[in-house]
Amino acid sequence: MPTVTMIGGGQLARMTHQAAIALGQCLRVLAASESDPAAQVSADVVLGSHDELDDLRRAAAGAVALTFDHEGVPLEHLRALEAEGVTIRPPSSALHFAQDKLAMRTRLAELGLPVPDFADLTGDVAQARTRFVEFGENHDWHIVLKTIRGGYDGRGVWLLRDRDEALAVFDETAGGGPGLIAEQMVPMRRELSAMIARSPFGQGGAWPVVETVQRNGQCAVVLAPAPDLTDDVAEQAQQMALRLAEALGVVGVMAMELFETTDGALLVNELAMRPHNSGHWTMDGAVTSQFEQHLRAVLDYPLGDTAPRAPITVMANILGAEVAPEMSMDERLHHLMARMPDAKVHLYGKGERPDRKIGHVNIVGSGDDSPATVRERAERAAHWMSHAEWTDGWDAHA
Amino acid sequence: MPTVTMIGGGQLARMTHQAAIALGQCLRVLAASESDPAAQVSADVVLGSHDELDDLRRAAAGAVALTFDHEGVPLEHLRALEAEGVTIRPPSSALHFAQDKLAMRTRLAELGLPVPDFADLTGDVAQARTRFVEFGENHDWHIVLKTIRGGYDGRGVWLLRDRDEALAVFDETAGGGPGLIAEQMVPMRRELSAMIARSPFGQGGAWPVVETVQRNGQCAVVLAPAPDLTDDVAEQAQQMALRLAEALGVVGVMAMELFETTDGALLVNELAMRPHNSGHWTMDGAVTSQFEQHLRAVLDYPLGDTAPRAPITVMANILGAEVAPEMSMDERLHHLMARMPDAKVHLYGKGERPDRKIGHVNIVGSGDDSPATVRERAERAAHWMSHAEWTDGWDAHA
Repeated sequence: MPTVTMIGGGQLARMTHQAAIALGQCLRVLAASESDPAAQVSADVVLGSHDELDDLRRAAAGAVALTFDHEGVPLEHLRALEAEGVTIRPPSSALHFAQDKLAMRTRLAELGLPVPDFADLTGDVAQARTRFVEFGENHDWHIVLKTIRGGYDGRGVWLLRDRDEALAVFDETAGGGPGLIAEQMVPMRRELSAMIARSPFGQGGAWPVVETVQRNGQCAVVLAPAPDLTDDVAEQAQQMALRLAEALGVVGVMAMELFETTDGALLVNELAMRPHNSGHWTMDGAVTSQFEQHLRAVLDYPLGDTAPRAPITVMANILGAEVAPEMSMDERLHHLMARMPDAKVHLYGKGERPDRKIGHVNIVGSGDDSPATVRERAERAAHWMSHAEWTDGWDAHA
Repeated sequence: MPTVTMIGGGQLARMTHQAAIALGQCLRVLAASESDPAAQVSADVVLGSHDELDDLRRAAAGAVALTFDHEGVPLEHLRALEAEGVTIRPPSSALHFAQDKLAMRTRLAELGLPVPDFADLTGDVAQARTRFVEFGENHDWHIVLKTIRGGYDGRGVWLLRDRDEALAVFDETAGGGPGLIAEQMVPMRRELSAMIARSPFGQGGAWPVVETVQRNGQCAVVLAPAPDLTDDVAEQAQQMALRLAEALGVVGVMAMELFETTDGALLVNELAMRPHNSGHWTMDGAVTSQFEQHLRAVLDYPLGDTAPRAPITVMANILGAEVAPEMSMDERLHHLMARMPDAKVHLYGKGERPDRKIGHVNIVGSGDDSPATVRERAERAAHWMSHAEWTDGWDAHA
């Protein structure tokens, strides 16, 4: 059977390895350390850095394809490998748009996909500042500042309260640092995510559109499918994601994060061309998980059935607490299992640091369960695993 | 998180490793070779033999518990390790009954559990032959001869047609070889399996009772739950298995293979104190898989929910063909995925040899599917993977 190499040894690679086992394979991972989540569990680990071309080359040797568990690999290295004949999925030409928010926004706008209004703040700093002020005034300073590259889970994103704060952050950040864009802060009802997959052959598959709940700038909870979403809007989101994947030549799974505005419109927020937190629910809640699907797409296998297994599945992230509880993770797991025999726990083998994603819990609802009930249970379980204290669930977080 | 060691590097260890990953662990395996199914995918492999005490000791070092993917480990080694303080689950005192068919039959009969009539053919050969003839005559030579130890998947079992064949096999086998027992050949409707789990704490959990279809002496297909089984009989089978596990001090999962006789009674056929082929359907068809459950039990975690996810799930084994097809396994998988996007395939990374179990397919039915429909699809998928030829499904095998 073929070998796929995943660049990065994090939890996404760890869970992709689980899926690879069923397909008769072992996922090869390029990991920085033997203690990385995926390196702890795979028999095929190449130690090295995703910033070093030689390490990437070693990891690719003998593999049928190279793929990623993060967006941080330098494009010039990927282009060099592609020139050497390495199959990279998604290809560098697509990955470019997941790495560069300005290129992504520009391309999306060209394709006619709805995006929040934005301003390019790259180039000469003085001229950019002028454009920034104009953009801010136009939006009554309801704006967000973002780095074009490298931001995730709330890093590289500044929610600005007023003109003074906006200019202070700009002046601190714009000179010499990573390029910036400004975006309109959209009055929104909630955030959604449309997870799809696309194979090199061009086959596409879409899971039900989910609602994502963010806390401290990162995904905390996912409700699958998004409650009270009309079929029309759900299909619109899926079609946008599939159309974009086609236009950009994406191969593998892709998450399109969306804003549902207060007037019910959809705007594209972010793209991820890899398994994504908003797809973790598929491990227990869908016929085909995002991890198996990513491998299928990368291998140019036909895609799997994306149907949900239940009317509602809720995923809640287990985050490192401000102060790690005295009770061991092992003991916390024991207690959770005693209280919730149906909770599906996925732990990543990571040390506990504040707000770090160290695992997640999926609760698959049955026919009678309301989304709120299932959500309460998922959040209660995740909060317990993080803090070793029982709460009344998500109301406690509101 | 704790480390569990599994003795044996076969497919059961491979799939247990998948389950271990979700629990934040890496399964350590004692494997004979790096190419063993589990050794291909786990980061923690100890190479050695389950017949060597020193190898077992090395594999146990630092692990919280030792468990098994087969019944072949010498009991004296396990007793020695237990004396040294190693936690062995199931303990040697229980495993004894899974290794020794005579001890098992005798103990079951003592406990009042229904077993086929049997005769002990150990000891002096001439005297055993006399007992054998008497037993044969009593049952009109509708009998089976079995080795007390080491038989599985049809090996070590002789289905005898008449007195002449019976005595010929006895005379060939009884002297010097492994001890034998004779068993009544039961007029039966079908075979069933009751899979349960028991934790050291004494918690028990039972999956729905399944129907197993044997071909060439080994399990070929499993229907979960067993169609048209009354609740009473299903509960009786579960209670028998739970009661036996309690009486023998089993820890982990246990399969109790049963005959359903033509008059609707149950008789215990075999026991396996490990994940078992008749439980593979749980990977996709139950809330908690047998592999996760085995780890939970071995770790003395509370057991997981054994509820089925669907009204019917069918598992079909992928067996090595008489002559391996020219089409590669990779390509066969590709074609299967194209035809059946909902098929859940589990491949073991094993070479193809005639009748060897090299993988399995689970089809999870939806509300409208009859067991026969789901079975036909599962068998068609498995037959394709084995032979690279499409059939009309299980009718073709009848």
